[in-house]
Amino acid sequence: MQLLENRIIADGRIIEGDILKVDSFLNHNTDIPFVWKLAEELHRLYSDCDVTKILTIEASGIAIASLTALCFGVPMLFAKKSRSSNITGEVFSSSAHSYTHGCDNNIIVSKRFLGKDDKVLIVDDFLARGSALSALWDITEQSGAETVGAGIIIEKEYQGGGDLLRGKGLRIESLAKIKSMSMENGIEFCG
Amino acid sequence: MQLLENRIIADGRIIEGDILKVDSFLNHNTDIPFVWKLAEELHRLYSDCDVTKILTIEASGIAIASLTALCFGVPMLFAKKSRSSNITGEVFSSSAHSYTHGCDNNIIVSKRFLGKDDKVLIVDDFLARGSALSALWDITEQSGAETVGAGIIIEKEYQGGGDLLRGKGLRIESLAKIKSMSMENGIEFCG
Repeated sequence: MQLLENRIIADGRIIEGDILKVDSFLNHNTDIPFVWKLAEELHRLYSDCDVTKILTIEASGIAIASLTALCFGVPMLFAKKSRSSNITGEVFSSSAHSYTHGCDNNIIVSKRFLGKDDKVLIVDDFLARGSALSALWDITEQSGAETVGAGIIIEKEYQGGGDLLRGKGLRIESLAKIKSMSMENGIEFCG
Repeated sequence: MQLLENRIIADGRIIEGDILKVDSFLNHNTDIPFVWKLAEELHRLYSDCDVTKILTIEASGIAIASLTALCFGVPMLFAKKSRSSNITGEVFSSSAHSYTHGCDNNIIVSKRFLGKDDKVLIVDDFLARGSALSALWDITEQSGAETVGAGIIIEKEYQGGGDLLRGKGLRIESLAKIKSMSMENGIEFCG
């Protein structure tokens, strides 16, 4: 998506640790009118899939997932990263490693909100090694719901998570795919 | 807001620890078409305030804050609960106690995204003792921005946080105000 690639070039910053900071428009200060255009594009890509629910993970996926859910006119369910006193009863759970924060997260979703009648679109801001997406997919499969696919804002294609999960049969649409990235040479997108 | 009160009566559940669970439509499984109506109401209440930014706190405030920001056509900035490797540089910070999770959170916002030219509407899902709202207000004041007010979905009025902050001069609009609540007698809203 050219609009998004242009914005990443203009406002993204590469910092140490192979991190692309897009906190000025995506995951801290969120340019909602801009993100709305991204949500509309995810809706266009999956418009014929009878999506009944958008699934994401707290916290930075929630904004794009909420706007995408608004486009589809369906609920947005966000997985939580640990059992808090506000989640009770039976849950689906899976484990995801966060390379950004250097820890494992047990992510959970209440069993009351996902089931075999659902057609789920998983939405997240980033896809790198695929740990979070793999865990969300696992949860959808546990519930008996149909996973129609994933909608990702920025995929770091060179980290391999996307191709790994595509190889296992998951449809993934990424609005920007980064082929390579370095502080010296900047960002190259996939053709 | 009658629509919201009806929904709380229909789908809210009171559990031990004075907790009102609205995870079926607000802060886990989020009924986005419904929350959109709440966002439109917050927009109506503050439509003449020249709002330039919506401020909230991760994670459960992000959905309502994103939809409210879409109504206003402005960015949504969410405070983070601890310094992660993805926040760099100078930050505004304040401390908030979470009674739900039984811990203190240091909440932070990058100084790059809030300043004296901003007119800030703070949005959150719950207001009880006012700890999170007070911390967000503190951060807005530190930045030199103007705080036009707060938009809250559910205020537990009997816990006193709202009146405390109103007494200090903060405009607070709550779409549902709970006067009393118990497992035995259910929910009574403020007249």
